[in-house]
Amino acid sequence: MDSALFQENERTAAVTDERQIADLGPFTTERGYEFTSIQIAYETWGQPNDARDNAILVCHALSGDAHAIGWWSRLIGPGKAIDTDTYFVICSNVLGGCQGSTGPSSLAEDGLPFGSRFPIISINDMVDAQARLVDHLGINRLLAVAGGSMGGMQALAWSVRHPERIQKCFVTASGAAHSAMQIGFNEVGRQAIMRDPKWRGGDYPLNDPPKDGLSVARMLGHITFLSEDAFGQKFARRLQGKDAFSYHFGVEFEVESYLNYQGDKFTGRFDANSLLVLTRALDYFELKDLRAAKAEFLFASFTSDWLYPPHQSETLHQMAIAAGLKSEHVLIDLPFGHDAFLLDGDVQGARVRAFLG
Amino acid sequence: MDSALFQENERTAAVTDERQIADLGPFTTERGYEFTSIQIAYETWGQPNDARDNAILVCHALSGDAHAIGWWSRLIGPGKAIDTDTYFVICSNVLGGCQGSTGPSSLAEDGLPFGSRFPIISINDMVDAQARLVDHLGINRLLAVAGGSMGGMQALAWSVRHPERIQKCFVTASGAAHSAMQIGFNEVGRQAIMRDPKWRGGDYPLNDPPKDGLSVARMLGHITFLSEDAFGQKFARRLQGKDAFSYHFGVEFEVESYLNYQGDKFTGRFDANSLLVLTRALDYFELKDLRAAKAEFLFASFTSDWLYPPHQSETLHQMAIAAGLKSEHVLIDLPFGHDAFLLDGDVQGARVRAFLG
Repeated sequence: MDSALFQENERTAAVTDERQIADLGPFTTERGYEFTSIQIAYETWGQPNDARDNAILVCHALSGDAHAIGWWSRLIGPGKAIDTDTYFVICSNVLGGCQGSTGPSSLAEDGLPFGSRFPIISINDMVDAQARLVDHLGINRLLAVAGGSMGGMQALAWSVRHPERIQKCFVTASGAAHSAMQIGFNEVGRQAIMRDPKWRGGDYPLNDPPKDGLSVARMLGHITFLSEDAFGQKFARRLQGKDAFSYHFGVEFEVESYLNYQGDKFTGRFDANSLLVLTRALDYFELKDLRAAKAEFLFASFTSDWLYPPHQSETLHQMAIAAGLKSEHVLIDLPFGHDAFLLDGDVQGARVRAFLG
Repeated sequence: MDSALFQENERTAAVTDERQIADLGPFTTERGYEFTSIQIAYETWGQPNDARDNAILVCHALSGDAHAIGWWSRLIGPGKAIDTDTYFVICSNVLGGCQGSTGPSSLAEDGLPFGSRFPIISINDMVDAQARLVDHLGINRLLAVAGGSMGGMQALAWSVRHPERIQKCFVTASGAAHSAMQIGFNEVGRQAIMRDPKWRGGDYPLNDPPKDGLSVARMLGHITFLSEDAFGQKFARRLQGKDAFSYHFGVEFEVESYLNYQGDKFTGRFDANSLLVLTRALDYFELKDLRAAKAEFLFASFTSDWLYPPHQSETLHQMAIAAGLKSEHVLIDLPFGHDAFLLDGDVQGARVRAFLG
């Protein structure tokens, strides 16, 4: 277990992005909610070629953003598997998010945040907004859509919703539908937020959000992203800045300090209602089959990922095979838990490079 | 997967107990806190024999109580492995608990609940209070101490703290020390409570406790007690009393209803400060070796228990072997997760029967 991997991953998150905002006009959700106008924040790297057939759309996970070259720096960049010297790489913040795209913390026409007025959205809605962005960028057909976790679900939704528009689909650490246990973890996070009195039914002032509930939800999230081994290697039973217990309910162990720090830091960059909206979209998502798809698939999963266990990727691979599509599933033996899809550049990198090449 | 097991287990929890209270006088904790007097709630089944050498002390887990014949009905009772026709079975609510034993919700000498004044206690303190209860019942030496999870830690502490007083030790679904991940789960639960404004630093009125925080902590607990398989078998993606989504943040899936119900129900029978005190004791517990012990050991663990994974029981078994003690470790293949130690009467029953016999 290479703890430097964690440190580097945390560092890259701080890199300054060069986000642009696309104003995509009116947008109707799958369930019929009509936005007067949506904005989608995005970044691109590399250049479209003359044929405009070298574009790769990268989709982020629950708490990610458009700055894919930050959170997926092991896979994206000059000379990397998703080579920005060769490909035109696009990543946007999802609809419902809070990093520049229209979401519950965006201001509605009355100048107040959407809050509780923001509609329930689906993974399909996120994907349809991305399709509009891709139009806006003058790209008709994508060479590939790639994503992990919630980003993998978006890639899957692309493959069946816009089958003519994508050639290849890379899905890592994801699944066709949340299991009861995955829904359960999301529900605990949602309850932590909604039972915080500061949530106020969703209509809190943006400068006084339900920080404590959001922080608890994020602490739980962090546990599910790692693995027993990863926690053991990273923290063991080491105490936080002391040699002996203080015997109180404050921080004693390093792991407690880490989780509280991660939880509290998250509240500075993420909106509680976005977490509700996005986890709901995750729980609703249910891919029955891939019969409508036409893409070639590469699936990856990780032995230590107990949040999106490998059997969920194998099910997806079997769906692709059953649909008569070319598909591979690579099971990668790494101890990092679900986070492995962000941390592994080597194995995923080699497979993705071959898959795209 | 036999879902009837779950139902029966839930039913037995409702059986009326016949709790007694022992007033054990002054008690000083390991760290020097002096209680003027402690009370320990307990139940017994069966009768002491003339030699008074047929007593078995059963120790409960985090949210358990003295009514062992309820929560461990598969192992304890007439004709069961821990046969109340043969043995004198004792179970007490732990010090720090809230089911009749002295704990944070007990009234201090000023007539107000201890609340934040209740000391940090250890697994050793729980065990020392039990030893006083065993004295009170006129038992010098126990035939066995048995427990699972936190109860297993108490059994281990008995073996090294009162080695002359126990002959056999049955420890199931437990470990020598919490890993970083186990501490992490406890910390999320504690933060859910302590960040609830109604916690008020620990000094809340007993009729207005931090219910929401405690409920969230319990919801998380329930996830860690089961397994992906158990959740899948029990709930799958079934909706709660409807055929289609309502598209809101309220309950959609059965698993959400179950977790919220379990969380809210828990607040009616458990004190939030007790959860803090007991989880802290769990996190502090660290058994270095069993060199002081003299008992014979039986360890059990379950393949699907990811909260107290089998390797933690194997480590305990190896500690016993290294100390020159007779020891067995039985790994039981059942899909119920951590809860298996409560649900499995068959395999544990046969092994415990042979072990005691």
